[in-house]
Amino acid sequence: MNRTPKDDLTLDFAREARIGIEEAIFCQGKADEHLVEILMQAERSAKSLLLTRMSLAQLDMLPPTQKAQIDYDPISRTGIWGKPRAVTGETKIAIVTAGTSDAFVSREAARTLAYHGVPSSAFMDVGVAGLWRLLDRIDEIKKHPIVIVCAGMDAALPTVMGGLVSGVVLAVPTSVGYGVAAGGETALRAILATCSAGVVVTNIDNGFGAACAALRTLRVMGIR
Amino acid sequence: MNRTPKDDLTLDFAREARIGIEEAIFCQGKADEHLVEILMQAERSAKSLLLTRMSLAQLDMLPPTQKAQIDYDPISRTGIWGKPRAVTGETKIAIVTAGTSDAFVSREAARTLAYHGVPSSAFMDVGVAGLWRLLDRIDEIKKHPIVIVCAGMDAALPTVMGGLVSGVVLAVPTSVGYGVAAGGETALRAILATCSAGVVVTNIDNGFGAACAALRTLRVMGIR
Amino acid sequence: MNRTPKDDLTLDFAREARIGIEEAIFCQGKADEHLVEILMQAERSAKSLLLTRMSLAQLDMLPPTQKAQIDYDPISRTGIWGKPRAVTGETKIAIVTAGTSDAFVSREAARTLAYHGVPSSAFMDVGVAGLWRLLDRIDEIKKHPIVIVCAGMDAALPTVMGGLVSGVVLAVPTSVGYGVAAGGETALRAILATCSAGVVVTNIDNGFGAACAALRTLRVMGIR
Amino acid sequence: MNRTPKDDLTLDFAREARIGIEEAIFCQGKADEHLVEILMQAERSAKSLLLTRMSLAQLDMLPPTQKAQIDYDPISRTGIWGKPRAVTGETKIAIVTAGTSDAFVSREAARTLAYHGVPSSAFMDVGVAGLWRLLDRIDEIKKHPIVIVCAGMDAALPTVMGGLVSGVVLAVPTSVGYGVAAGGETALRAILATCSAGVVVTNIDNGFGAACAALRTLRVMGIR
Amino acid sequence: MNRTPKDDLTLDFAREARIGIEEAIFCQGKADEHLVEILMQAERSAKSLLLTRMSLAQLDMLPPTQKAQIDYDPISRTGIWGKPRAVTGETKIAIVTAGTSDAFVSREAARTLAYHGVPSSAFMDVGVAGLWRLLDRIDEIKKHPIVIVCAGMDAALPTVMGGLVSGVVLAVPTSVGYGVAAGGETALRAILATCSAGVVVTNIDNGFGAACAALRTLRVMGIR
Amino acid sequence: MNRTPKDDLTLDFAREARIGIEEAIFCQGKADEHLVEILMQAERSAKSLLLTRMSLAQLDMLPPTQKAQIDYDPISRTGIWGKPRAVTGETKIAIVTAGTSDAFVSREAARTLAYHGVPSSAFMDVGVAGLWRLLDRIDEIKKHPIVIVCAGMDAALPTVMGGLVSGVVLAVPTSVGYGVAAGGETALRAILATCSAGVVVTNIDNGFGAACAALRTLRVMGIR
Amino acid sequence: MNRTPKDDLTLDFAREARIGIEEAIFCQGKADEHLVEILMQAERSAKSLLLTRMSLAQLDMLPPTQKAQIDYDPISRTGIWGKPRAVTGETKIAIVTAGTSDAFVSREAARTLAYHGVPSSAFMDVGVAGLWRLLDRIDEIKKHPIVIVCAGMDAALPTVMGGLVSGVVLAVPTSVGYGVAAGGETALRAILATCSAGVVVTNIDNGFGAACAALRTLRVMGIR
Amino acid sequence: MNRTPKDDLTLDFAREARIGIEEAIFCQGKADEHLVEILMQAERSAKSLLLTRMSLAQLDMLPPTQKAQIDYDPISRTGIWGKPRAVTGETKIAIVTAGTSDAFVSREAARTLAYHGVPSSAFMDVGVAGLWRLLDRIDEIKKHPIVIVCAGMDAALPTVMGGLVSGVVLAVPTSVGYGVAAGGETALRAILATCSAGVVVTNIDNGFGAACAALRTLRVMGIR
Repeated sequence: MNRTPKDDLTLDFAREARIGIEEAIFCQGKADEHLVEILMQAERSAKSLLLTRMSLAQLDMLPPTQKAQIDYDPISRTGIWGKPRAVTGETKIAIVTAGTSDAFVSREAARTLAYHGVPSSAFMDVGVAGLWRLLDRIDEIKKHPIVIVCAGMDAALPTVMGGLVSGVVLAVPTSVGYGVAAGGETALRAILATCSAGVVVTNIDNGFGAACAALRTLRVMGIR
Repeated sequence: MNRTPKDDLTLDFAREARIGIEEAIFCQGKADEHLVEILMQAERSAKSLLLTRMSLAQLDMLPPTQKAQIDYDPISRTGIWGKPRAVTGETKIAIVTAGTSDAFVSREAARTLAYHGVPSSAFMDVGVAGLWRLLDRIDEIKKHPIVIVCAGMDAALPTVMGGLVSGVVLAVPTSVGYGVAAGGETALRAILATCSAGVVVTNIDNGFGAACAALRTLRVMGIR
Repeated sequence: MNRTPKDDLTLDFAREARIGIEEAIFCQGKADEHLVEILMQAERSAKSLLLTRMSLAQLDMLPPTQKAQIDYDPISRTGIWGKPRAVTGETKIAIVTAGTSDAFVSREAARTLAYHGVPSSAFMDVGVAGLWRLLDRIDEIKKHPIVIVCAGMDAALPTVMGGLVSGVVLAVPTSVGYGVAAGGETALRAILATCSAGVVVTNIDNGFGAACAALRTLRVMGIR
Repeated sequence: MNRTPKDDLTLDFAREARIGIEEAIFCQGKADEHLVEILMQAERSAKSLLLTRMSLAQLDMLPPTQKAQIDYDPISRTGIWGKPRAVTGETKIAIVTAGTSDAFVSREAARTLAYHGVPSSAFMDVGVAGLWRLLDRIDEIKKHPIVIVCAGMDAALPTVMGGLVSGVVLAVPTSVGYGVAAGGETALRAILATCSAGVVVTNIDNGFGAACAALRTLRVMGIR
Repeated sequence: MNRTPKDDLTLDFAREARIGIEEAIFCQGKADEHLVEILMQAERSAKSLLLTRMSLAQLDMLPPTQKAQIDYDPISRTGIWGKPRAVTGETKIAIVTAGTSDAFVSREAARTLAYHGVPSSAFMDVGVAGLWRLLDRIDEIKKHPIVIVCAGMDAALPTVMGGLVSGVVLAVPTSVGYGVAAGGETALRAILATCSAGVVVTNIDNGFGAACAALRTLRVMGIR
Repeated sequence: MNRTPKDDLTLDFAREARIGIEEAIFCQGKADEHLVEILMQAERSAKSLLLTRMSLAQLDMLPPTQKAQIDYDPISRTGIWGKPRAVTGETKIAIVTAGTSDAFVSREAARTLAYHGVPSSAFMDVGVAGLWRLLDRIDEIKKHPIVIVCAGMDAALPTVMGGLVSGVVLAVPTSVGYGVAAGGETALRAILATCSAGVVVTNIDNGFGAACAALRTLRVMGIR
Repeated sequence: MNRTPKDDLTLDFAREARIGIEEAIFCQGKADEHLVEILMQAERSAKSLLLTRMSLAQLDMLPPTQKAQIDYDPISRTGIWGKPRAVTGETKIAIVTAGTSDAFVSREAARTLAYHGVPSSAFMDVGVAGLWRLLDRIDEIKKHPIVIVCAGMDAALPTVMGGLVSGVVLAVPTSVGYGVAAGGETALRAILATCSAGVVVTNIDNGFGAACAALRTLRVMGIR
Repeated sequence: MNRTPKDDLTLDFAREARIGIEEAIFCQGKADEHLVEILMQAERSAKSLLLTRMSLAQLDMLPPTQKAQIDYDPISRTGIWGKPRAVTGETKIAIVTAGTSDAFVSREAARTLAYHGVPSSAFMDVGVAGLWRLLDRIDEIKKHPIVIVCAGMDAALPTVMGGLVSGVVLAVPTSVGYGVAAGGETALRAILATCSAGVVVTNIDNGFGAACAALRTLRVMGIR
């Protein structure tokens, strides 16, 4: 009955060696005492950590010495603890959004890549309800072997993208919208039902997951 | 306890006068004896009738004299009883499909319009997974003040269409597809969540309904 | 990694020329910094903007000079930035609600039309659970070629309306109600399943969308 | 391991004494050997039985001597085994349908009542998409203290009915329709969300249940 | 564009004469200005009003003179404006709950009845997970011709009740519970699927609706 | 490209040693050539096999020599290949059904147990809509430390059972019923939401799973 | 109309004698006055009570003398009123979580057991996305005849566990996660669909229920 | 009104040049006359075609000369028209299934790859309910940079796989199973909710889509 927060944790600092992706902490719903303990263990191990879906309230409840070591982005609600790798090399990954409201997801992807030292290019607010916005930039997008597409509501963009580019297309449905769009289930299902061959999907709002899939792809491309 | 099929019916032959759309019989699930009785009443009233979602089995169980008076199309499963009006005038309505499999819906729309004497143009298999298919024909489509768009699976076409044309866009989700696309719920929700302003929707596979909405629009345009 | 809010935006001020509907900003879920940037771009372009689903909190966080230029309605949560067009001409559009609680949707429709310079008439709280409320006013409603019907819960009103008027019927399900009615899914599905021919639907609570569909209809009627 | 069909049954011939409703056998999904055994027990007990949702195939597999004792109605798929009570007395129950396709449900209700010796009146195909159909007959319907309303698709009829009559309104959603209407879930939810106060609901297609609720009401009215 | 709250309302003070149930105001989601206007109209008409699902916040925003005239119950969130009828006569209605948490629904039913001058008896917390709680009180419950049963979670109580009493059983699913029980959908569907013949259902948490159904039943019993 | 059925299989004949439950073959959806290959491997290994959800068509397509070695029960659609263990010892497991239609599930449980040499007692058709049926037999049921309860529709029986017995209660929702009950989802959710503490659940119609859970329990009781 | 909180309660202090599990109070959604009354009755009866899903706000609103007698754990939101039994004997129950975020559920289970005087061992954060975490500890887990597995998101752990241990496996889906994982429905369904034979399930987040099922199992093992 | 099947088609033989994936025909739901026309066009263009989800009935209705040119596999329901490319080169893609029943999906993937001239290795029936089956073969699987994992029911395999391999993991949920598993929705959602970082998903049963995603990956690896 006398458990400590430490008893509830089994961190996986060897994950990077195993699958090429570093341990990340999904903060949403974690108890404050668990987060504090996790950061203490990271500090003891001299490891860096990616913190995802961390609320401002969670950031603020941390001891000042812990909070000071976190690079926090409020839009994506990501925090980076410790010294991230330098972001270097040519950009192989285009991150595209259908609307400005999708930025909280696209930034999670961009920051996850950056945390692993991987650069990316952003193409924002190019949804196909105004088709010219995409056509204006498609040639630039096509130069990237990997395209991450973030789209909510009807999520028509991944289908159009899949028909225009020959590289890897990783689609992330977002929870943007109201009525039948609220929560992202419609966007998710629309992408799963895409008429474009070979477009793959992650969970709703899972910019982190799309970035990790991109890291796996870079690895088999021999880049990482 | 001794009911006859006639007791179960209240036909509405005055509907055309009231709302400009003629009585149509939704056949799916109707008992054979009810269908036979409906056609007998139509004959007695010297009326024509549009029969929707009529299965081949229902057509075949009819008495030969009734069956002989029906112009039946197996793809749309529509039957026209009696003498339809002549189809005349300039075409104001473009009927567009995303894929060949959507033809059963687009034909229901086209035949409903024809039954009311209204012509339409067809633009088939122009889904946006191969964007050039739509762009090749968009100028021609734009000439029609009313566009009926039939699309299943991810139903990305209505969104792209809505951003390209300024006229009325009536979208019909279709039940084409499997997995999350099966039944058309995904297509329906994707269209409802469209980023294109002013695109409206009917029930899944409801080509009849889209045609009737087009008839209402023609009426307020002063054409019917 | 050093992105600015401006990088996340691609405004579409040419939309009016393209499809007859002006750029509108869907505010729900947008980051504060993005909203501020959007209004700055609008100001620089000397454009007006329609702001939909804007919360009071979003209005209040704006810089005073921006806030002062917004005509805000708290019930519909719409804001109009800049100088709207004059509302002129004969009223062609009736906006009807089933209940008083639907006013937040009907006002969004009315204000969207007004923003485009288009007048509308309101017929409020005439749901068919008290049928006399509708029958008392139906003759007046029928004078409008376009009827926008906002209804939640069981949404029986659009079906009755569709059988009484011959013009265009645009139905908007609302999220009013509790239990199975909560969120508006029941109202949406009831309208999609309507027995009245040619009634079309928008997303739940999408008064903006219904207004845009009305604008498209006016355009093909030769009025805009 | 050596079980007989008899081991799987516990019939409730005392139910009528307990709650005023006789034992009825729900046939759908029952194994043939179970149905045969049930009828054998009924015969031994000299009881009558109401058989609901009995397919033609189930009827046909019965031994000829059993089959001969069943009064079977193919539309409602109900069978009455043994000698039913005489149907006598004044009609207190109106059974109303929105469309002809709902007849399979309304007949199940009517036959369940008749099996208990209770008469009913039928008002068929009076759905509110053609409002005059209901208004023509509402005065006659109002004379019945109990109204059973069967409606599928959007099921707008029970709401209108509930606002017009002061007696008991028992609504039965039906599985009629396609797309979002298929299966009756939309009709069910629309009725549950009704704006009319005091309308109550049964399971989809449950004409039997509505009849039993009517029997309970008659009992508290002092009629049975 | 210059609408007043009055324009959004069409009150139905004649409802009592029409269907025996008085006008009630569903407050949830209504704008403050609409509620104030409704009470002003009620005052002008010298009518009483039942206010359902009224939050404490809504009560508190009212002008003091309006607030002072409301008898408010925080558990059921009901308010009674004006002078209610005296509650008289023999109790014909048992209101039964499965658990203490269902009290917010059972009280809405009891207060709706009381508002119409109708008494009721309460049998609380007698869910069938502890069967003796029901069996101890069933004889007393059986003395009432009408039983309103409020139950959440698995909602097994209405089925057991339906097998024990011969009178009218009106079941109200409640939103009590978590996981699959949250929101009351499971309770609703369990009751709809009941094995007990003739149990009818209202929307989730709709104690008001069950009371109105009881009023309809009393009326056909000749009591009101 | 030249694969044989054998390439698609990895049988687990060591499962019994590992977890005390023997390999069973889920036949539904398996290709004919795969089933034939599985039985060939079983024969070569001199193993017995339990075949679940095997259709009559699957049984009939087998080579006669394979078919002859299968003890097939059409109600539960189970087959036993090879020589099953003798069923011995005192009965520790009561298998209870709410209705006769649940027999296809309860038999799957009973046959799975028998295949492992474990006896069980059956208590059929004792659903709580007729409470006396259960109360008549509850003392006998209580003598068994493990109770498997199979119930569809509203599935009220497991809740009542859980409040009456102190042993292990394993509930199996069944797909019996129509409307909201069809498919068993309502029964499943009702049991998951049970008010009775410590009742656990398997997948819909999973009599096999409940039997395996009983086998696990017997093992920790020291009986197997 | 003049009800007191006491009228709404029927506590079941005899439950322990009947089914071996003590009365527990589900606090979520209970009115403050009901909670206070329940504790007063417990005090009068000199009983202890387990309070589940009790919010901090509910704890804080209690009178100080009541609050002082509650041992409250904020992570599991459980309170223990009165003097719990001593926790003694050998540990037979392993409580396993897939992630740290599942601790709120596993603690509810552990505290429920402790309240009944039953010890348990904890194995935290051993989800199979890092398989070594489980394999490192599986031998220790296997020493327990009963394993409670708490897992959210994809809930793959119960399936792997079920294939590794021969004892009783009680799985609890948790509501941890976002997108399709939010609310725990995905975890629940994944466990119900498990390929591992004999794994059983409780409601989402129902650590209490799993503990009670363990208590039932201990009882039939002859330990309690 | 006089349309021919040809009018309904817009084939995309240039797709391979555009995105590296050849035109494939989704046959399910296509009218017979459309399939015949498609093959005629392919023949005229001297193109090969991949036919997916083609039923045996569709194959059999083709004119003999067309049928003779199709290499048909009944398990995956795929047909290859015309001369496929030679399958050459080192195998980079492992196709893994959780169970034998998933073979219909894994074969669709393998045949799609083969149609494009790409080899693959198969690892069948290695689901994690018997963990040794996977661990026995994981070293071999790891040698492939791309792993396609097909799994139904609880779909736990992709999560375990994602934690063991560092390459690209493409997961395909399958519709195998019954109860909550039926149709594959549970498998789909479980994979989307995976705890393993960077696992991506296709539509249910979409072996074709996974193969196309693998083709896109090979392309960016410089292999195609």
